[in-house]
Amino acid sequence: MSLIVQKYGGTSVADAGCIKNVARRIARTKDEGNQVVVVASAMGDTTDELIALADQLSEKPDNRELDVLLSTGEVVTSTLLAMALHSMGYPAISLSGAQAGIRTDSTYSRARILKIEPKRVVRELEKGNIVIVAGFQGITEDMDVTTLGRGGSDTTAVALAASLGAKECQIYTDVEGVYNVDPRLVPEAKPLGEIHYEEMLELATYGAKVMHPRAVELGELFNIPILVASSFNESPGTLIHGGVAMEVRNKVRSIAHNLDIGKITVVGVPDRPGIAASIFGPLAKAGISVDTIVQNASIQGITDLTFTVFKSDLARAMEVVKPIAAQIGSSKCASDDTLGAVSIIGTGMQNTTGFAARMFNTLSEKKINIQLITTSEIRITCIISADQVKEAVRVLHHAFEIEEE
Amino acid sequence: MSLIVQKYGGTSVADAGCIKNVARRIARTKDEGNQVVVVASAMGDTTDELIALADQLSEKPDNRELDVLLSTGEVVTSTLLAMALHSMGYPAISLSGAQAGIRTDSTYSRARILKIEPKRVVRELEKGNIVIVAGFQGITEDMDVTTLGRGGSDTTAVALAASLGAKECQIYTDVEGVYNVDPRLVPEAKPLGEIHYEEMLELATYGAKVMHPRAVELGELFNIPILVASSFNESPGTLIHGGVAMEVRNKVRSIAHNLDIGKITVVGVPDRPGIAASIFGPLAKAGISVDTIVQNASIQGITDLTFTVFKSDLARAMEVVKPIAAQIGSSKCASDDTLGAVSIIGTGMQNTTGFAARMFNTLSEKKINIQLITTSEIRITCIISADQVKEAVRVLHHAFEIEEE
Repeated sequence: MSLIVQKYGGTSVADAGCIKNVARRIARTKDEGNQVVVVASAMGDTTDELIALADQLSEKPDNRELDVLLSTGEVVTSTLLAMALHSMGYPAISLSGAQAGIRTDSTYSRARILKIEPKRVVRELEKGNIVIVAGFQGITEDMDVTTLGRGGSDTTAVALAASLGAKECQIYTDVEGVYNVDPRLVPEAKPLGEIHYEEMLELATYGAKVMHPRAVELGELFNIPILVASSFNESPGTLIHGGVAMEVRNKVRSIAHNLDIGKITVVGVPDRPGIAASIFGPLAKAGISVDTIVQNASIQGITDLTFTVFKSDLARAMEVVKPIAAQIGSSKCASDDTLGAVSIIGTGMQNTTGFAARMFNTLSEKKINIQLITTSEIRITCIISADQVKEAVRVLHHAFEIEEE
Repeated sequence: MSLIVQKYGGTSVADAGCIKNVARRIARTKDEGNQVVVVASAMGDTTDELIALADQLSEKPDNRELDVLLSTGEVVTSTLLAMALHSMGYPAISLSGAQAGIRTDSTYSRARILKIEPKRVVRELEKGNIVIVAGFQGITEDMDVTTLGRGGSDTTAVALAASLGAKECQIYTDVEGVYNVDPRLVPEAKPLGEIHYEEMLELATYGAKVMHPRAVELGELFNIPILVASSFNESPGTLIHGGVAMEVRNKVRSIAHNLDIGKITVVGVPDRPGIAASIFGPLAKAGISVDTIVQNASIQGITDLTFTVFKSDLARAMEVVKPIAAQIGSSKCASDDTLGAVSIIGTGMQNTTGFAARMFNTLSEKKINIQLITTSEIRITCIISADQVKEAVRVLHHAFEIEEE
């Protein structure tokens, strides 16, 4: 008997009808002879509605209280899924993150999983139950509820799959899998049959919203195959795993884009050791995640330092950086929230040349100005004006003949 | 420094504006130099909405899952109250029933409190926090969430007050206190300044919805004064306590009525030992609460047995009773859901006569037929047709001159 972990996203459980549909899919997996653990998200817009309520009561709601508030959304869905399964004649039980043994640190609103003690989950599986676990949440040593932040329920699912030794972790959502380019921008786009963890990680980090990089990383670490598929139809979905041949292909596999970018430039920074740390240390402490960092070549011991953050963190990041910039003698500290990113990704790009040149040429022909460039072994990212991102995705898709893949 | 426990009902926390109002009242109690523990109910219609959702997914939702589902309502309010207090500059923390140490048996949907282990509550009070506890819920030995059933949040409040040695338990609601007669039926009705536990218990049991008898009993047991008052104005409310002189008054103090009555009559029951037990044992096991029981005088070893249950339990009770009735040789088993009850209550009625006669005469003059009569030392209850209850309350109010109290 194999153990399957399934996670259903918010749109998949948006109302009673959707929940019944999901219950039927879970029942089918059980009927196929599997043990099933399900990770439930909050219904549709529940989380946004709870946040709106909190905002009515406090300008800056306390993170501990906000976590307890938001954690109720996933608990509600879990109980409803269990009830739907009961009414179909299947034994099922809902567990909160706490009951499922998901132990986290006490960084409210973006807690990290320290360990999973799945005793209760195992006990309920042995009793023959389908176990429904409330996603996105855990509990501290002091028994206080935490939430896991961005990508939380995906992370719950992959972490549970790892700790239970599951055969596969299935992420059900409202799209048919992982696309090589955004299908809203390129209508002929199609989901990939499979993708390597590394490529998925780049794709997730550089714009594809379908899965959070954090959950992909965890899947790679514990070697858990992750299937991304739609809960609304029977399309096969995309399998993310480590067995995809990396060397034999020689192409750009996918194009990612991202509009959630805020840029900060600290102008006239002395080029000496410790300067970067003095800026990025306090940002990390403030919980602001920094993405791309670029430092220009030093001219007479003075350089400019540019980096990007989530657009929603931009104002707060400026508050942190401004006094530090003044202290280290920077002449100016500027922010820009009109930018976007476009990336080409493919393991086939490793150790081969010409991709960067073709990318820059293609953009230049369309008069798209590149503000920043960063690369990894299997990715090239250009930061450009936000209102040119759509066009950039289309022309790159054509230039690299992604559809012929 | 005194410790005050305050409980706010659903209408008192129905929306963000109400919650802010409640937060101001809590802050004032804290400013007056008290330690404050607050028990929060679910917002407005939340509980009904969650039940409606459950009903869409299952004809008979599992009690364990339903308890987990419903418990989220009180958790949500608790966090919002804490946030509202924070934004006013008051330290506050929300705790679930589990975190507040409310240990119950595992009778889902109507669990009984076994004990309270308020270590965490005490620790947070010592830190200077206002402690907001989610009402209506507890946790079993297996760490499963339970709800306390009818009167649950009142019971949480009084039980916490008892275990913390509070000076007073304040129940805030949408009425100005305990009335001697329903003000919707008798406009000149006014709230009582004080009332003895015993009288309140009869009043609560026989129709006054303002407080559940279970919480009143607990208050009496631990001698916790309970103030019932409005959260919407500054009226003084009604103090329920044990210090009210019981003997010096000689009057009917209040009139209660109740429309939530289902009657079952088992006709032609053999009058021999063990028959009552054979009927009421299985009802108790099915969790059906039986109220009034009347057995007529035996004629040739055959009697009729009549009893009342909550109207919502009537169908289920008939299912339990019918096969038993057939087994013991009853000729017929009938139910009636068109009845109501009216009661006169007053400790002044103890050991005095004439009250029953005056009550029966008054009803008879208005051609109100009495189906069943039951009495306690300080109460007389008549079961009558539901559509005559309003009139009965009015004429009894006049006959016993309640308004002159």
